[in-house]
Amino acid sequence: MDAAEFRRRGKEMVDHVADYLEKIEERPVYPDVEPGYLRSLIPTEAPVEPDSYEDIMKDVERVIMPGITHWHSPNFFAYFPAASSYPAMLADMLCAAIGCIGFSWAASPACTELETVMLDWLGKMLQLPECFLAGTHGHGGGVIQGTASEATLVSLLAARCKAIRRVQSLDPKKSEAEILSKLVAYTSEQAHSSVERAALIGAVMMKKVPTDNLYAVRGEMLKKILEEDKAAGLIPFYFCATLGTTPSCAFDHIADLGPLCNQENMWMHIDAAYAGSAFICPEFRPLLNGVEYADSFNFNPHKWMLINFDCSAMWVKKRTDIIGAFKMEPLYLKHENQESGLVTDYRHWQIPLGRRFRSLKMWFVFRMYGLQGLQAHIRKQVGLAKEFESLVRADKRFEICAPVVMGLVCFRLKGTNELNQSLLKKITKSREIHLVPCQLSGSFVLRLAICSRSTESRHIQQAWQHITQLAFELLQEHHH
Amino acid sequence: MDAAEFRRRGKEMVDHVADYLEKIEERPVYPDVEPGYLRSLIPTEAPVEPDSYEDIMKDVERVIMPGITHWHSPNFFAYFPAASSYPAMLADMLCAAIGCIGFSWAASPACTELETVMLDWLGKMLQLPECFLAGTHGHGGGVIQGTASEATLVSLLAARCKAIRRVQSLDPKKSEAEILSKLVAYTSEQAHSSVERAALIGAVMMKKVPTDNLYAVRGEMLKKILEEDKAAGLIPFYFCATLGTTPSCAFDHIADLGPLCNQENMWMHIDAAYAGSAFICPEFRPLLNGVEYADSFNFNPHKWMLINFDCSAMWVKKRTDIIGAFKMEPLYLKHENQESGLVTDYRHWQIPLGRRFRSLKMWFVFRMYGLQGLQAHIRKQVGLAKEFESLVRADKRFEICAPVVMGLVCFRLKGTNELNQSLLKKITKSREIHLVPCQLSGSFVLRLAICSRSTESRHIQQAWQHITQLAFELLQEHHH
Repeated sequence: MDAAEFRRRGKEMVDHVADYLEKIEERPVYPDVEPGYLRSLIPTEAPVEPDSYEDIMKDVERVIMPGITHWHSPNFFAYFPAASSYPAMLADMLCAAIGCIGFSWAASPACTELETVMLDWLGKMLQLPECFLAGTHGHGGGVIQGTASEATLVSLLAARCKAIRRVQSLDPKKSEAEILSKLVAYTSEQAHSSVERAALIGAVMMKKVPTDNLYAVRGEMLKKILEEDKAAGLIPFYFCATLGTTPSCAFDHIADLGPLCNQENMWMHIDAAYAGSAFICPEFRPLLNGVEYADSFNFNPHKWMLINFDCSAMWVKKRTDIIGAFKMEPLYLKHENQESGLVTDYRHWQIPLGRRFRSLKMWFVFRMYGLQGLQAHIRKQVGLAKEFESLVRADKRFEICAPVVMGLVCFRLKGTNELNQSLLKKITKSREIHLVPCQLSGSFVLRLAICSRSTESRHIQQAWQHITQLAFELLQEHHH
Repeated sequence: MDAAEFRRRGKEMVDHVADYLEKIEERPVYPDVEPGYLRSLIPTEAPVEPDSYEDIMKDVERVIMPGITHWHSPNFFAYFPAASSYPAMLADMLCAAIGCIGFSWAASPACTELETVMLDWLGKMLQLPECFLAGTHGHGGGVIQGTASEATLVSLLAARCKAIRRVQSLDPKKSEAEILSKLVAYTSEQAHSSVERAALIGAVMMKKVPTDNLYAVRGEMLKKILEEDKAAGLIPFYFCATLGTTPSCAFDHIADLGPLCNQENMWMHIDAAYAGSAFICPEFRPLLNGVEYADSFNFNPHKWMLINFDCSAMWVKKRTDIIGAFKMEPLYLKHENQESGLVTDYRHWQIPLGRRFRSLKMWFVFRMYGLQGLQAHIRKQVGLAKEFESLVRADKRFEICAPVVMGLVCFRLKGTNELNQSLLKKITKSREIHLVPCQLSGSFVLRLAICSRSTESRHIQQAWQHITQLAFELLQEHHH
């Protein structure tokens, strides 16, 4: 395919993309395929001679679409949103064309520098304390990670390295292995599974801190465990706080937890993967108070800020903490400006070496929406969640299971877990809307998250009508 | 921006992309900017109200392009290639539109299933042993990782888990910390820095194995170190072999190393990040002989197989080895088919949770090029490297520093390292071509890698003319 053919096929693809998204509501949101469906639909080997482009595009509809869960359908309410917007897609086309691999400043200065400045822009939108920004002379700064899981892992590894050095500076006879075996990380019992996984990768112990009746960790809960663990000779070194937990969008009390972590020489990382986007609205910003005590902070613009996956924004107070944990300098990656102190080589900030020019997506989205446009998006989706909450509250058969703060509603039929499992099964099977469950205090709970940019009030009303209809059928069956 | 505007802007962007790539040769390959150049060119904060799209596109030329290292210029010969092709770009547009996050089968069955089948297609192209394929009943299978660094890390972590379990099964009294402190991983002294970094992350010791005069590790070299280490009470558990090292594209002797690793209960991972693509050509396939002894194998189609970054292909012989090392099962990620044994949940195979629909790029590229088209691409680029090699060999002032097997030529002026450093400085400063150096046996060596899909014989001839002209000037200066 040469440039001339790409001009033609590319324009067709632009229309294809617009058609898909404009008509997405007509498709069942959840696919009706059995495991292994795809293998029999295509050849067992790659072709030796080229296939025609027409055949490939026909196969997109024949082979791929029947197996797609349509994350951007207005009837998709599962997990958390995956962001999507036209400006981000345009920027990604440009990113593919430039196709630079921005592991160091020299590998494409614009790729590194736009990222640093975009993370400063975004940090200012969130009113992050100055110390997290790169500015022109700062010690902090931001980086785009692929996912929140990677941000958590990077922070845990940086904390591990710092803790080992600190303990060894106090007692040089202690071996690294000995220290490692005594390090303990902490997180909420409501934290995302990736936090526990980071500890598994980093070969350190991790303990779950119990939460209050709103599923949030409070200072006194962490303090109690720390006292016990220190008395047992363990070395607490890391706490991952969550702002907006995955099950119920609960908020740990970072303003209490932060001073405690600082006092105990523990790294505090804040994972605000979903909720972070909302902190650009003044009415939600108080939930971030206490961030000034954190060593690192992360959220996913690719969830709720209209920037297509992947784009996870992470800031650190001292970039040397992160760089020091990872730095490797082979000659083929050296360049003349790297020791000047003026440049950032982002490969030291992350797990992979290679990286795409992802800040282009931020730049396009921030400029095409403006801060007001982004705030309007957040507020609209929170409004839709509140609308759904009112519908649930008005129906005595149902209950709301956690405060509705942002775009997530946790609810259930009053009754057994089995009943609610049956309801979810019916919903999944009907394929009109798509939800996933969570567990709260032993209860099986349904989660409705406002996800798609195209979800409107009528979809919320329809979704509720659909759910109550299925619940009605279910309760009828149970009475027989 | 609504769908109608996207249709217009998207088509403009398609032309913009085609224009950029068609005229890329007119741009200096390496940018002439100082560290920090970008910050002063744009505002210090995001706009509150939207900017116009025209202004953004003007800024792409004003702000971004001056700071780009043009990886797809025919005059770019640095690092290793970053793949790029029009079919891959089209597939990525579709991927952005679908915008699913394929962490589990249920999150989009097509995303998971196409990936499994594409890795089987690719495995067959490479003539990988059947045990690495998923097939319909296999124990092995492939996965797309973001980068080779992640594949190495995943394999090391799986090996670590397996080793700890094995040692504990023999001696249940040994603590995990004790075993961990005795585990040793090995790799070539020529291996990529990411291998050493994987050990750092995994908190295990890593030792470098010396290489022969062609920069390759041989069985006897590893064997010698293993004997010493075992005698000292250490537990060898992992060897990362390299096929196509970054400095000189050397090939470890896996047919000798493999049986040794098997016998010692060590996991053998093969990192063929760059060279792996060439194994689809029968004339290069013998270099992969011995892969049957490996536990995992990885290469980057995003380097040399026309699939835009990121797309790193990894296969394992026993997928349970990898899944077992990472599995976490919160309720919000469970789905009804997961215990059926029929589905793959790729989140257990990788570091991040989220993942894009990257197999679409493979599908489009494999079908639009066909196996023959991909082979032709490899052969053409190897031919260009051979052409450059002949030019160097015909000039008595220069020497070739390592065998030219694929698309990389390592060469230098006969003389001091300082002389060669000066030559590279002149090359970099002239901005007509772009190279990076490496170190081989203490010598400072220039690396010329055939990178861009648009590089032709005339670019090789011009590059050599340019290099010899600068060398001539340099040698003149030295004589004064």
